[in-house]
This record gives sequence, C-alpha cells and structure tokens, in this order.
Amino acid sequence: MTQMTRIVLASRPTGSPEPANFRLEDAPIPEPGEGQIAVRITAMSLDPYMRGRMDDAKSYAAPVPVGGTMEGGAVGQVTASNSKHFAPGDWVFGMFGWATHAVADAKLCRKLDPALPVTTALGVLGMPGFTGWFGLMEYGRPKAGETVVVAAATGPVGSMVGQIAKSLGCRVIGIAGGADKCAMAVDTFGFDACLDHRAHDDAKSLRAALQAECPKGVDIYFENVAGKVLEAVLPCMNVGGRIPVCGMISWYNEGGLGMNAGGAKDQLPKLWRTILVNRLHVHGFIISDHWARFPEFMAQVAPMVADGRLAYVEDVAEGLAAAPDAFIGMLQGRNRGKQIVRVG
Amino acid sequence: MTQMTRIVLASRPTGSPEPANFRLEDAPIPEPGEGQIAVRITAMSLDPYMRGRMDDAKSYAAPVPVGGTMEGGAVGQVTASNSKHFAPGDWVFGMFGWATHAVADAKLCRKLDPALPVTTALGVLGMPGFTGWFGLMEYGRPKAGETVVVAAATGPVGSMVGQIAKSLGCRVIGIAGGADKCAMAVDTFGFDACLDHRAHDDAKSLRAALQAECPKGVDIYFENVAGKVLEAVLPCMNVGGRIPVCGMISWYNEGGLGMNAGGAKDQLPKLWRTILVNRLHVHGFIISDHWARFPEFMAQVAPMVADGRLAYVEDVAEGLAAAPDAFIGMLQGRNRGKQIVRVG
Repeated sequence: MTQMTRIVLASRPTGSPEPANFRLEDAPIPEPGEGQIAVRITAMSLDPYMRGRMDDAKSYAAPVPVGGTMEGGAVGQVTASNSKHFAPGDWVFGMFGWATHAVADAKLCRKLDPALPVTTALGVLGMPGFTGWFGLMEYGRPKAGETVVVAAATGPVGSMVGQIAKSLGCRVIGIAGGADKCAMAVDTFGFDACLDHRAHDDAKSLRAALQAECPKGVDIYFENVAGKVLEAVLPCMNVGGRIPVCGMISWYNEGGLGMNAGGAKDQLPKLWRTILVNRLHVHGFIISDHWARFPEFMAQVAPMVADGRLAYVEDVAEGLAAAPDAFIGMLQGRNRGKQIVRVG
Repeated sequence: MTQMTRIVLASRPTGSPEPANFRLEDAPIPEPGEGQIAVRITAMSLDPYMRGRMDDAKSYAAPVPVGGTMEGGAVGQVTASNSKHFAPGDWVFGMFGWATHAVADAKLCRKLDPALPVTTALGVLGMPGFTGWFGLMEYGRPKAGETVVVAAATGPVGSMVGQIAKSLGCRVIGIAGGADKCAMAVDTFGFDACLDHRAHDDAKSLRAALQAECPKGVDIYFENVAGKVLEAVLPCMNVGGRIPVCGMISWYNEGGLGMNAGGAKDQLPKLWRTILVNRLHVHGFIISDHWARFPEFMAQVAPMVADGRLAYVEDVAEGLAAAPDAFIGMLQGRNRGKQIVRVG
C-alpha cells in the first residue's frame, strides 16, 4: 500500500465552516527520512483551536495554507522507523494531521503507554486535559472551599478542570449547552451542579441561575467560551478572583477581531471596571508554551485515569471522511465529551 | 475658633460633576474623643477615585452620602491630642475630608517626617505614588530592557511608574493629554518619549505613533485611563505582557457600567482575544488592599525623593473653596502634576 487519504483545506471559511471548505484526497505515502518514523493513524483529535488555523489572520500559530493538510494531533502505530527511539508496532502520538498515514520527525512524537487506551492521548491525557489542569493549577490557584465555574463543562478541558477542582475540595459549577450535557457533568464528572446556557435567553437570566448555585460568589472562572457565558459570570466574581483564559469558542465563528459578537456590544467598559473593582487576575495562556510541565501533569493525572478516579468521555466519529462534519458539529456543541475520529 | 468650613456633596452628578454638586458650609469643630486627635488641615488631595464616591453605585468603597463631607486624604498639624502617639504641633496625614479642620482616630493617622515637604504625603510619597510603585513592581514585574507604556504620564501615579521603570533600565513611553504635559514627562520625569493623545483623532492614529516609539513592542502597559488609549496600546502588547489596572479615568464620567463609552463599542471580543493570543496577564488592584507594603515603598522611594533622584510636580489650588473647580478640572486633565488644594 503506497497511497494514503488526507483532508485538506479547500478554501477559507467565512463564519462557520462548511463541508465545501474541506476536500478529501489521495496522496502517496512519503518515505521516512533520517530520524523520522512512518505511522498508520488509528484516531485523530478534533479541537476548537483548529478553527483559528483555517483563517488567514495573525495569531499565535501560522494558518493552514489552502490546499494543505488540516492540522491536528493523532495517534497511531509505527510502521517503519529511522529512529532508535521507535520500533514498528510502537504506539505514538504526534501532530500527524487529518490523514490515514503520516511521516514525522521522531523527536516531535511521544511514545504511548499501551496499558491505557491510546485515544486518551488525544483528550484526557493529551493537550486538552493538560490545558485544563495547567490553567487551573497555575492561574486559577484553587483553594479548598472556593467556588469554581467551568464553561464547556463536558468538554475535555472543562471536565478536567471540574474534576481536579473537586478533588481539591472546591465547589464546582459547570455551564454547558443542553440538558443531557448538564446531566453528564453532574453524573459522570461529579460537578456539584451544571447550568444549561441554552435554557436562558440572555446573560441576565443565566446569571440569576448561577448566583443561586454560587451563594458565596465565584472565585475562579475557567474561560473557554466567552460570549454570553462570560457576560453572565463576570459580575459574580469575588474580590481577588482568577480567570484563566484558554479559549473563546463562542466567538470563533464571528469573524474574529472587533466584530459585533452577539451580546458583547458595549461590554468592554463593564469588563474592565469589574477587573478593577473586584481586583481580578486575568491570564491568557496558550498551552504550547508550557509543555515543560507535561511530565508533572502526567505523573499526577495518569494514575487517576488508570484507576478510574478521573472520568473521561469520548465522542467517536467513524472514518476520516466524517471529520469535517464532526468538526463543524463540535463548533456548534453537538459532541458529547472529547470529539475524536476513528481513522483506521 | 470653634467653627470650621467643609465641602459637602450637595447632589449626585450625572456624567461630569458640576459646581452645583458641591456646597461649602460651616460647621462646629468637634472635640476629640478618647484616642482621637484634632487637626488643622493645611493641604488636601484631589484624586480621580473621588468621582466614584459621588455615585450611588456598588463599588469597592461606600459612596459619600448626599450632605456628607467629601472624602479625601489631607495633611495638617495636630492642635489637640487624646493619644499618646501624637502631640500638638505634629504633622499628620489622615482621611480628613474636604475641610479646614478634622477630628480623627489617631490610629488611622500617620505622623509625617517634617524633613520632607508634608504635601509629598498626598502624592509622590502617598497613595498615588504608592499605587504606581506597587502596581509596577507587583504586577508589572519590569525587567531591564523591557518597554513600559504609562498612561496619564505626568500624574502622580504615572510619573512614579515611569521614573521607577527608568531606574530599572526599561524604555518608558508616556501618554498624556497636551504638548506641555508631554514635555514635562520627558524633561522633568525622564521618560524616553511621550505621546499627546489629543493630537490623535482616533486610537489607530495614536497606535501608529506608539508603534514608532516602541520598536520592540510593549511589555507592560500601566493602565489608569482606559478608553482610546487602551484601544491604541492593546494590539502593541508583546506575548507575556502585563497590564496592571488601577483606574480608568476616561470612563469615570460616562455613567459607569455598560454605557457606550467613546471608542469602546464592540471592543470586548478584541480585548479578550488579545489577552488570549498574546498570553497577557491583567491584574486589577485597589491600593487600599496593600497598605502592608507601604513601609517597603517608603524605605525605597523616600530617599529618592529626598535627594532629588525622583521628581514630583504639584499643582496647587488656593483655598478650600477652590476644590470643586480644581476637581472638575482634574477629571478633564487641566492639572499639571499632582493636584492638591492649599487649605490653610
């Protein structure tokens, strides 16, 4: 077999991506060079950050070129190796892209422990789980008895934040879109409560529900959605509160900078005043700056996954060709838990 | 003499304060009780935070009641003491209010070293200077070679920030309103450059001028004005930049929360995205939380004031009756340096 299948960026989206922005195509499988490995991909990750890579805007990472393979983390098995660190049959994680096969520099890949399901390297024990753990511990600085609010509570970032905060003795309130997600947050991930933002027409209504669940106010808001949820939570923040910011999915399809995002109009003075008056600490972070802390994360969290103390949920789309629809759906919140694609 | 003069809040302002919001009146001088001192006030401070006290809105401090004496720090001489810590003739700082005389709990007052002009306790060696020093050191964390942008550069906060940052080897760019203030920032306070925001019609124009002065981007933006200046600086922030936020004077007269402040419309998504993408650290703070650090500030900065390494400028209004107009003018930027009122 010398041919692989991949998905390339056919055109840049305006607003929400559509299937026509993607194209499935065949390509020859490259030969691994010196220090490289060849990998047969079994599963790939879909993550909100990929929406940013589809735009040609200045950001913290270069955009995917039109015609280029969509970027992304994936797991698979080594089929050929020109590196002493890998042997055929090894399970491996790397930034292999949306494809059935890949060739990559061995030093950029991570060998996986097959004692755990290898797909955990895409979610709970991968970039999203690490993002939640790092942002909470480094910038949230949770203390027992504090109240933590987590947006996108059932996603792989939010469910990590919530479970770690619970393990540290915090009261944890989730926010998610849909009654079934809210039930999952409480029943599967152990949140104290979870609010359905879709059941509230506006930020004010959501805020009232949140205040009822947070009688002592909010000490940490883990931000990855922005929009209406941010507007609802902000006035509930306690003095000295912390806001780790790792994403803003509700604005990703709004055209980026400075657009009239829903509900956000005229909110800047309000935000800025709350930061001042409530002495908030707002920390933007990009997890790729912090890989040095990954071993610490794995040492702490992998045992919790192995023995079941820390739950995770995967939403599996079948086959590479299903990736665009699953990605579009994830941006709309259709996924339940970590969205992955089973490739082979 | 048994009568004092004071200025009370006659009515709450809508937008910018007007003279009719204040009333000069006579009142009996109270007798000091146990543990109290009586003070003849010689000079009082005017500060932007007082605008917030005139509103009946929830904030970090209670509003001045209508009919109550306007709040504020002042210096004066003890005329009678029921405290073993003070004797008549001592110079003292306290929150004496807009008045010619006051009685106050001795334990809330601070004895002044008459070797330095006592009015320094209102500005460079008082709350404003401490605000600048603390915010820069604690949240700005300046390193030699970094670029620091300081709004309201010639005010008592900004001029402290700029001079301390310069002493630590930073490049320091000020922003001020008017060519004479910009000259003062450079000539008196030693800023590397200072931009006149009134010479720029919009944030974009101001930003272009700023970029020309900050070829290596901005590492620290010391925020105390918000509005157009914030909008101009934000896109210039380097990755890992820090924004201490201690005020937002340009919005103080805008009616507070959520109003359509000039230039701020639709800016929230842009701000939030910049915080994320550039991994900014935004810290709101209220200096009254941090008085425990005041001795450290005095130990470091008072010698610099005493020997002239650190400059300060005072803008003196003559007589208590001049306070309302001086205050209104300060909110419009009419003052040159720290605004004080000579009372007696």
